[in-house]
Amino acid sequence: MDLMANTLLAAGASPAMIHTIEEIPDFTPHIDGLCINIGTLSSTWLPSMKAAATLANQLGKPWVLDPVAVSASDFRLKSCLELLNFKPTVIRGNASEILALSSASKGSDKGVDSSHRSTDAVEAAKSLAKSTGAIVAVSGAVDVITDGQQVVGAHNGVPMMQRITATGCAVTALIAAFLAAEPLHALEATASALSIFGVTGEMGNDLAKGPASLRMHLIDSLHGLDEVAVISRVNITNMP
Amino acid sequence: MDLMANTLLAAGASPAMIHTIEEIPDFTPHIDGLCINIGTLSSTWLPSMKAAATLANQLGKPWVLDPVAVSASDFRLKSCLELLNFKPTVIRGNASEILALSSASKGSDKGVDSSHRSTDAVEAAKSLAKSTGAIVAVSGAVDVITDGQQVVGAHNGVPMMQRITATGCAVTALIAAFLAAEPLHALEATASALSIFGVTGEMGNDLAKGPASLRMHLIDSLHGLDEVAVISRVNITNMP
Amino acid sequence: MDLMANTLLAAGASPAMIHTIEEIPDFTPHIDGLCINIGTLSSTWLPSMKAAATLANQLGKPWVLDPVAVSASDFRLKSCLELLNFKPTVIRGNASEILALSSASKGSDKGVDSSHRSTDAVEAAKSLAKSTGAIVAVSGAVDVITDGQQVVGAHNGVPMMQRITATGCAVTALIAAFLAAEPLHALEATASALSIFGVTGEMGNDLAKGPASLRMHLIDSLHGLDEVAVISRVNITNMP
Repeated sequence: MDLMANTLLAAGASPAMIHTIEEIPDFTPHIDGLCINIGTLSSTWLPSMKAAATLANQLGKPWVLDPVAVSASDFRLKSCLELLNFKPTVIRGNASEILALSSASKGSDKGVDSSHRSTDAVEAAKSLAKSTGAIVAVSGAVDVITDGQQVVGAHNGVPMMQRITATGCAVTALIAAFLAAEPLHALEATASALSIFGVTGEMGNDLAKGPASLRMHLIDSLHGLDEVAVISRVNITNMP
Repeated sequence: MDLMANTLLAAGASPAMIHTIEEIPDFTPHIDGLCINIGTLSSTWLPSMKAAATLANQLGKPWVLDPVAVSASDFRLKSCLELLNFKPTVIRGNASEILALSSASKGSDKGVDSSHRSTDAVEAAKSLAKSTGAIVAVSGAVDVITDGQQVVGAHNGVPMMQRITATGCAVTALIAAFLAAEPLHALEATASALSIFGVTGEMGNDLAKGPASLRMHLIDSLHGLDEVAVISRVNITNMP
Repeated sequence: MDLMANTLLAAGASPAMIHTIEEIPDFTPHIDGLCINIGTLSSTWLPSMKAAATLANQLGKPWVLDPVAVSASDFRLKSCLELLNFKPTVIRGNASEILALSSASKGSDKGVDSSHRSTDAVEAAKSLAKSTGAIVAVSGAVDVITDGQQVVGAHNGVPMMQRITATGCAVTALIAAFLAAEPLHALEATASALSIFGVTGEMGNDLAKGPASLRMHLIDSLHGLDEVAVISRVNITNMP
């Protein structure tokens, strides 16, 4: 939550972290975008997540699902499948997570290995996008974003970002902020958030001596990002 | 909690983060000051907060309430009003939070907008201080501190501190540590903690390139703070 | 959790933070090492801890207990004593924690003061190691590690590491990772993890201006650690 909140603040957004079901009905109408992250899922938090997703859906607010380590347990997988019923605007995970979720959403219980390249998951992502109506993003060396038909690649970022905890969670939160600003262009907002976060990783990496200083410089770079850096560095392409 | 604990450690205090009601009776007698922060309030944590506040009150230990986002939900507002019954020594919030809490403590349900200047909340702070017996502090460009009669301003800090998550929470924790050291001078301790935290923000800002490096330099500055820096930079004034 | 996860990632390990009892049966078979930390213990988390320890024990996976602030409450002490029944491979605490746990495991309720040197706790550590079959490590200016017979000292680290929250928790997690790599040499793995973490603290301290920059440089140093630094700096000795 710390890195997610600081990422959003550095980007100019206004994060609030709400867990308690008592607060969901009052607070959800005030949001512009919702991020549901199952990283530390519990049976206490799950009803809050469902309530928030239901309301976001009813109110027409965009929301993003991060199926963190979805194949770690049946509880996690089952919870994610239930959350899919509330029509996420975007689903963002790594290749293993998207492969597992796509497979499970088709009723398959085929096991999923833990390491895949994002490009290996393109067909799974397209299938998941078609069956859920969500934009599906697969993070990796190349981030792949699809609505089920069009496939876009975001080619920014550095490998050391994976050596910082919660960078995946942070970029999912940033996607929610971008969706809040551009609710009618979910694919473009998702690709932009992934690319911009990757750009700040590249800029941070030029100054970093390891993952902890990369984390600092990444957030500083996001806060100080200007149009010149965006235009010269963002690398988003159509993929075949 | 991470920034709060590191702020307290850098200041030479000894933080412990206790949530479970089973531990409140055993642990509370060992504390010198208590900080109750409703940032991630839940129906599980609320009874622990009430038990700790009750005991702190009975044992004559100073305690500080941080009514984070008090107007975000009825649950949060109602919880804060209940906590006021346990006589906090200090209440610290931003202008919107103090306006909402002051208004609600008078039985008004007038809505509160989300952005106010700390100086706009002076009358609300005085009213809340009078009705609760607490010192009330309103954070902002100028931090305003009042016991209901006297009004003091602390004029330190930099705007970028608001782009770091939990700086408000951290300064509230620091107030608790200052109260632990000076329990008989609650207004002075509160103003000093706010000013000192602002001074470390100023010193950190001289070295920072963004909010993440500011966070680091702020904590380093707090740890290394000496008398010369305090005397030359602290800016606390009486306000009309 | 943030510092623990980043420490493990910097060291090349793959951390997962699981709290919910629903996930323990599915996930525990996939781990190579388990770390149980009672820092923010609750009655909800305790059954998950017991279930994970039971399974780790049954599956022959190494696991480490960090009895954080064990004497802060009867609930905490009783919980730790229960966890000892599940045969931790290693127990790591500071001198006060090991003294309290060793004393309580013998049925004594003699109070324990809050500040002790690690060398003061050597006999308590040996006694606890003998009665539990665990390797017991006592962190301090010198880290003391014992299997009940042999006593080894790790002489690395700098005092400012104690001014960063969760450094103790982080080194316990690192011990779990070292145990995962060397399950048959638990004493050596424990001493090595403590020494290596201390080395990265020394290297970080050469660059740091306070505890927050030390935290950053420590993690960067751990990520960049090479054989030359390890060989020239690691200082582990037999103790009388």
